[in-house]
Amino acid sequence: MPERAAPPLRRLRAGIVGGGRGAFIGSVHRMAAELDGQALVVAGAMSADPKIARESAAAWFLERAYDSYADMALAEGVDENGIDFVIIATPNHLHYPVAKAFLAAGIHVMCDKPLALTVAEGQELVRLVEGGTTLFALTHNYTGYPSVRQAREMARSGQLGTIRKVMVEYTQDWLMEPLENRGNKQASWRTDPARAGLGGCVGDIGSHAENLLEYVTGLEIESLCADLSCVVPGRRLDDDGNILLRLRGGAKGTLVCSQIACGEENRLSLRVYGSEAGLEWHQQEPNTLIHKPAGKPWVRLRTGQGYMSEPAKTAARMPAGHPEGYVEAFANIYRGFIEDVRRVGSGQPPLRDYPGVKDGLRGLRFIERAVASSQAGSVWLRL
Amino acid sequence: MPERAAPPLRRLRAGIVGGGRGAFIGSVHRMAAELDGQALVVAGAMSADPKIARESAAAWFLERAYDSYADMALAEGVDENGIDFVIIATPNHLHYPVAKAFLAAGIHVMCDKPLALTVAEGQELVRLVEGGTTLFALTHNYTGYPSVRQAREMARSGQLGTIRKVMVEYTQDWLMEPLENRGNKQASWRTDPARAGLGGCVGDIGSHAENLLEYVTGLEIESLCADLSCVVPGRRLDDDGNILLRLRGGAKGTLVCSQIACGEENRLSLRVYGSEAGLEWHQQEPNTLIHKPAGKPWVRLRTGQGYMSEPAKTAARMPAGHPEGYVEAFANIYRGFIEDVRRVGSGQPPLRDYPGVKDGLRGLRFIERAVASSQAGSVWLRL
Amino acid sequence: MPERAAPPLRRLRAGIVGGGRGAFIGSVHRMAAELDGQALVVAGAMSADPKIARESAAAWFLERAYDSYADMALAEGVDENGIDFVIIATPNHLHYPVAKAFLAAGIHVMCDKPLALTVAEGQELVRLVEGGTTLFALTHNYTGYPSVRQAREMARSGQLGTIRKVMVEYTQDWLMEPLENRGNKQASWRTDPARAGLGGCVGDIGSHAENLLEYVTGLEIESLCADLSCVVPGRRLDDDGNILLRLRGGAKGTLVCSQIACGEENRLSLRVYGSEAGLEWHQQEPNTLIHKPAGKPWVRLRTGQGYMSEPAKTAARMPAGHPEGYVEAFANIYRGFIEDVRRVGSGQPPLRDYPGVKDGLRGLRFIERAVASSQAGSVWLRL
Amino acid sequence: MPERAAPPLRRLRAGIVGGGRGAFIGSVHRMAAELDGQALVVAGAMSADPKIARESAAAWFLERAYDSYADMALAEGVDENGIDFVIIATPNHLHYPVAKAFLAAGIHVMCDKPLALTVAEGQELVRLVEGGTTLFALTHNYTGYPSVRQAREMARSGQLGTIRKVMVEYTQDWLMEPLENRGNKQASWRTDPARAGLGGCVGDIGSHAENLLEYVTGLEIESLCADLSCVVPGRRLDDDGNILLRLRGGAKGTLVCSQIACGEENRLSLRVYGSEAGLEWHQQEPNTLIHKPAGKPWVRLRTGQGYMSEPAKTAARMPAGHPEGYVEAFANIYRGFIEDVRRVGSGQPPLRDYPGVKDGLRGLRFIERAVASSQAGSVWLRL
Repeated sequence: MPERAAPPLRRLRAGIVGGGRGAFIGSVHRMAAELDGQALVVAGAMSADPKIARESAAAWFLERAYDSYADMALAEGVDENGIDFVIIATPNHLHYPVAKAFLAAGIHVMCDKPLALTVAEGQELVRLVEGGTTLFALTHNYTGYPSVRQAREMARSGQLGTIRKVMVEYTQDWLMEPLENRGNKQASWRTDPARAGLGGCVGDIGSHAENLLEYVTGLEIESLCADLSCVVPGRRLDDDGNILLRLRGGAKGTLVCSQIACGEENRLSLRVYGSEAGLEWHQQEPNTLIHKPAGKPWVRLRTGQGYMSEPAKTAARMPAGHPEGYVEAFANIYRGFIEDVRRVGSGQPPLRDYPGVKDGLRGLRFIERAVASSQAGSVWLRL
Repeated sequence: MPERAAPPLRRLRAGIVGGGRGAFIGSVHRMAAELDGQALVVAGAMSADPKIARESAAAWFLERAYDSYADMALAEGVDENGIDFVIIATPNHLHYPVAKAFLAAGIHVMCDKPLALTVAEGQELVRLVEGGTTLFALTHNYTGYPSVRQAREMARSGQLGTIRKVMVEYTQDWLMEPLENRGNKQASWRTDPARAGLGGCVGDIGSHAENLLEYVTGLEIESLCADLSCVVPGRRLDDDGNILLRLRGGAKGTLVCSQIACGEENRLSLRVYGSEAGLEWHQQEPNTLIHKPAGKPWVRLRTGQGYMSEPAKTAARMPAGHPEGYVEAFANIYRGFIEDVRRVGSGQPPLRDYPGVKDGLRGLRFIERAVASSQAGSVWLRL
Repeated sequence: MPERAAPPLRRLRAGIVGGGRGAFIGSVHRMAAELDGQALVVAGAMSADPKIARESAAAWFLERAYDSYADMALAEGVDENGIDFVIIATPNHLHYPVAKAFLAAGIHVMCDKPLALTVAEGQELVRLVEGGTTLFALTHNYTGYPSVRQAREMARSGQLGTIRKVMVEYTQDWLMEPLENRGNKQASWRTDPARAGLGGCVGDIGSHAENLLEYVTGLEIESLCADLSCVVPGRRLDDDGNILLRLRGGAKGTLVCSQIACGEENRLSLRVYGSEAGLEWHQQEPNTLIHKPAGKPWVRLRTGQGYMSEPAKTAARMPAGHPEGYVEAFANIYRGFIEDVRRVGSGQPPLRDYPGVKDGLRGLRFIERAVASSQAGSVWLRL
Repeated sequence: MPERAAPPLRRLRAGIVGGGRGAFIGSVHRMAAELDGQALVVAGAMSADPKIARESAAAWFLERAYDSYADMALAEGVDENGIDFVIIATPNHLHYPVAKAFLAAGIHVMCDKPLALTVAEGQELVRLVEGGTTLFALTHNYTGYPSVRQAREMARSGQLGTIRKVMVEYTQDWLMEPLENRGNKQASWRTDPARAGLGGCVGDIGSHAENLLEYVTGLEIESLCADLSCVVPGRRLDDDGNILLRLRGGAKGTLVCSQIACGEENRLSLRVYGSEAGLEWHQQEPNTLIHKPAGKPWVRLRTGQGYMSEPAKTAARMPAGHPEGYVEAFANIYRGFIEDVRRVGSGQPPLRDYPGVKDGLRGLRFIERAVASSQAGSVWLRL
C-alpha cells in the first residue's frame, strides 16, 4: 500500500459506503466525521443503484463516486491520495462484506452497528481486526455524550458503591404501523430478516441499550430472560421486547425496547442504583445527568461545567447551557477514532477510546441470546 | 344491632385499630377520613400496648379508647352511638383477624392493603363480605388521584385503542440499609414474614403497582415471570423485584419494584401504550397526566381543569394549579366509601366505587405467584 | 368573657364567616383548619343570604348557623362553649368590619388576605390587634409550604451570600375573558373596586408574590415602578402587571402578575440570586426547591427529607415522595395559629409563626403604591 | 472582481476574521458554517497577534493565513479562487471596520452580533449594505432553532390571537465574579466599553432576548424602562438588567438579562401570551415548544415531528428524539445565508431568511435606549 502524507498537516480523507438519498444515517455520519474540522468525506459508493450513487455523491460534492464498494476499496487502497478511512452506513447485511473488503485494502473502518448479521460473521471480523493493524470503530454513538462519559467515570471509580440494580430502556413508536408495507425504505429493510438479521427491535435499538448499560457500568450481562413480540400483525421480526437481566457481580435489572411505544420518539434512558448512589440519564435531554447520593438530595450534573470529570469535559465542545446534541455525541466517536488514525499514521499505538469490534461481537451475542430465549418460551439463557 | 341516627344529618363516626404513636399511616387515615367534613374519628384501639393505646387516643382527642380491637368491636357494635365504620391501620398480619371481628359486629371496614397474609385468608374475607351486607374498602389509595381516574376513563373508553404494552414501576430507597436491625419499627415488621406475609417489597409496594395497572387498564395479569431479590444481606423478604407480565388480551409489560433503589422516594409510575395513544403518569407529580395520541404532540392533562372527564373532575377539590397530593387522593377512597355507608344507612344499594375485597384477593394472588415464580428460578406462572 | 375549657383536652372550635355555597376558599379553610385534628368548624355565618347561610351550614353539619356575622360575634363571644377562633372567608370589603366585630368580642381571627380595602383600614386593624391580646393571622398560605420555609431558612442564614437579584411571578388565566359579565360570582367581586379594593390582579395575587418574596428573603421592597393594565376591555381593575423592584440593601428584581396569561393555572414562582448561591421554587410542583451553589451543580431539595432544616421538616406531614399540596401548606398557617390559641389559652406568650396584621398592612401598602405608580405613568415610588 | 466557479458544483469557500486560540465562538462558526457540507473555511486572519494567527490557521488546516483582516480582504477580493464569504468573529469594536473592509472587497459577510459599537456605525453599515449587492447576515443564532421558527410561524399566523403579554429572559452567571481582573480574555473585552460598546450584559445577551422577542412576535418594542446595574464592584458596564417593555400594538412585558444570576448557564427563555393561546420556549431544552391554547391542555411540540410547520420542519436535520443543539441552530443561520450566496452567484435574488443589518441596527438602538433609560433614573424612553 502507498505512503500517504502525514495526516497532521491536513484534514483526513474519508469515504462512505451507503448513505445515499433517503438514508437518514448517512448525513449524520458526514456531519459527525467533519464536525471537528479533522476530516472531509471525499469519496463514496453511496448506493447499489449507480444513478442514485452518482447523484448522491454529486449532492455532497464528493471528488470520487463509485458504483460499488468493491471498486472503491480496490481503488482507494492503492491511491496515495486515497481515503484514510471508510464509513459503512449500509443496511446491516452489508456490514460484514463491506468491512472485509476495506480491511483487506488496509483502510481503517468506521462501521454502523450491529457489527454484522450473525455471531459467526462477528467472530470473523474480530479475528481479522485483531490479527491486523487496521483500526475498526463501531458507532454505538450514545456513548459519545459527555454526560454518559461522566456516568461511566462515576460508576467505574466506585462513586456508586456496589451496583445493585439497573434499568435501561430504548423506546420508539415509528414502527407502530406496518410501514414496511407502505413503501418506507427504512422500515422495509429493518423488518426483513435477510437484511436486518435475527433481531428486529432488539437488534436495532435493544443492542444500543445493552451497549450503553455495559459501557457505563462495566458489568457484563451474564444471563437474560427475554419476552420479544411481533406486535404489528404480519411483521417477521420483533418490534417490542421486555428482558430481565442478571449482571456479572450480582446486580439485576430490566431492559425494555420497543418500536411500537405510541408517542415515544427516541427514549433511551438508563438508571443505575448502587449501594452508595444512583445515576439517571435520558438521551432526549442529554446534557443533564442526575446523581443521587444516598441520604442526600439529587444533584444535576451538566455538560460543559467545570466540575465534570476529565473525560466528560474533553467530550464537550461548548460552555454549559449551549445544548449539545446527537450529532455532537456521534462526532465524539469520530474524534477518538480520528485521533487513532493520526496516531497509527505517525507510528504511535492507538488508544481505542471508542466502541470496537469486540463490543460489536458482544452486541451480536446479546441479540442472538435474546431471540433464542424468547423463542424457547422466555427462559433464562447465559450470554 | 342497634339503630343509628340517619347519618346525613351528622358527620359519620369512625374508629381506628392501629395507627398509634410512631405509625405513619394512622394519621394519613385520620386526615383522609375527615378531609371532606363527612366523618370524625372518635374511637380507637391504637396499639397493642395499652399505655401507648391510651396516650395515642388522648393525643387525637378520641372519645373512647380501647385496649384491644376485640373489645372495641364488641362495644361499638352494640352502642347506638357507636362508630359507623372502622379503619384498620395495623401491620399486615392483623388485617384478617381485625377485619373478621368488625365484620362480625356489623361494622363497615376500611382496611389497609394487603388484604391479609395469605390467599386463604383473603378468600375467607371475600366469602364473609360477599355473604353479608357490611361494606369493605381497601386503601389502594393511588387509585384516588384525579389523574389516575382520568387515565382509567381514557383507557377503558377506548381512547388508547388496543393496549399493547405497559410499564409500571414503584421504587423507593428507604430499605437500602438494614434498618430492621437498627430499631426502626416500620422496617422491622415489614421485613418479618410473620407480620408482613410472603412478600416484602413485592407485597408492600409491588401490589400497589399491580393494582394501579389493572385499575387503569382493566386488563388482568394473566401470567408473570418474577426475579425477586434480597439485596440487603440477612434480609428475609425480598427488597427488590423485576417482573415480566403478560396481560389478558395480549398486552405485555414489566413491573419493577424496589425498596433499595438509592435516591428514589416514592416513585410510582405507569405507562400504557395502545394502538392509538399512550398515557404516562408519575405519582410524585400527580396532578399531570400525559396523553400521547399517535402522530400528534403530547398533551398535558391537569387535575382540576374543566376539560377532564367527570370521574376526574369530581375527584378534584380545587381549581387547577392548586396542587392536590397524597392525602387528597387517599381521601377520595374515603369519599366513595363514606357515600356508600350513607347509602346503605338509608336503604340504598352501595355504588362500590373504591377498591374492595376482591381487589385485595387479586393482590394476594399476585404476591403469592410472584414469590413462587422467583423461588422456582424465575419461571412463568399463571395468575 | 366566659372561661372556656382548657383547649389541650379537646379540639378547638372554629366559626366561619363567608365560604357559603359556590365559594372555593371556604372549604379550603375548613380542610386546612381541621387537617391536623386540632380544630373543628362548628359555627358559621356563611352567607349574607339567610337561606344560603342555613343550607351551607347544614351541608357542613355545623352546630350553630347565623344569619349575620354580627350576631355570631355577639353570641359566640359570650357562650362558654363558643368558638375559639373565627375564619374570615368573605370578599375583601368585609374583612375589616368582620375582623373588628370578632376582635371586639375577644375571639381570635384567621383572616383571608388582603387584610382590608385600604391602608387606613389596615392601620386601624394593626392598632386594634397590637393594643389587645386577641390573635390575628392572615392566610398568606404559600408561606406554609415546607420548601418555602426551607428557602427562608437558607436565605436568612446567609447560605445565599448577599442577595443580588430576585424574580417573582404569579400568573393565571382565569380572567382572560370578561367572566364578570357572565355571572361568575368570583370574577364579579374581584373586578369590582367596591368589593375588591384598589387593586385587581395586583391585589389578589400580586400581594401574594410580594409577601412570598419578603418572607423568604427578609428584604423589604424599598421602591417600585409598576406598569399595570386592564387588558380585558371594560374591566375596571388591573388584570395584569409588570413591576420593577428595588429592595432594601441593594438587590433589584421583577414582580410579574397576571390573570390573563393564557394557559397558566396558578404559576407562582420565586427565584433568588445571591453572591454565593441561588434558589428557585415553583408552587405548582411545591415539594421541590432548587438550590444553586456557585460553581457547583444544582441540588434538588425535597419536602419530607431528613436533610431539610428543622422548620421545613416540622412543616411536612409525610415521608418524602408523598406529595403534599395546597391544603397541607394552608394547614401549616393554621397549625401555627392553633398552637398560639392553645398557648394563649394556657397563659403562655404566642409564638406568632404565621403571617399577621403587619404583613397585611405591608401588602396593602404594596398594592396602593403599585396602583399609584402605574396611574402616574409608571414612575418610581417608595414603599 | 474576478468571476468564481459556479458554486453549486463545489463547497463554498469561507474565510474567518478572529476566532483564534481561546475564542469560543470561532469554532462554533466553523462547525456551523461547515455542518451541511456546503462550505469549508479555507482562509483566516484569526488574531491580531501574527504568531497566534498563524498557529490558529494551521490548527484548522487553513489554506491561507493572513496577519491582518485588511490584507485578507484585499487579497481574497481579487483572487478568482478567493473566499465566497467572510465570517467576522472578533470582539464587538472590530465588527464595523472589518465589515466595511470586506463589503468594500465585494465579499459577502456573516457577522457576529452586535452589529457594531454605536447606532451611527450601524446606520453606516445599513447604508452600505442596502446600497450594494453584497449579502450581510448577523448571527442572532437563537432564531435558528426549529422550535423558534415554529413559534414565529404560530405567532405570525394568528394562532395566538392578539398578543397581550410577553416575558423574555436571558440569564447567566459567568460574570458573577470579577473575571476581568483575573486574566479571563472573554471577560476582559466584554466588560470594557472600548471593545464591547455601551452595553455590557444588555448588549451581549439582552440584545439576543430583544431580537428573539421581535423575531417571534413580529412586534417591535415601542418604549422601555430599564433598570441596569453593575452588580460586581468596579465593573464599568452593566452586568444585570430588568426592563419593562411596551410593544407596538399594545402588548406589554418584561425583559430580564443577567450575567450574575448564580447557577444559570445560558437560560434564554420566551413566553408569549395571546388572547387565544400562549407559547413557551426554553433554549436549554430547545427541542420542545409548549403551546397553550385557551381552555385546553398544554401541547408539547417537538423538533423533527411531522406535525410541525414547514419552516420548522426544514430547519430540523434529524427525526424527532435525536436532540439538535446550539450548533445545529447556528448552522441554520448559515444555511439560509449560504443558499443566498449561491442564489446571488447564479443571478437569482436573495431570500434573506436570516437576521440582517437592519435587525442589527434595531439591536443597537435597543442597547442605546436601555442604557439611556437606566442612566436617566430608569425612565420610559421610546425606541
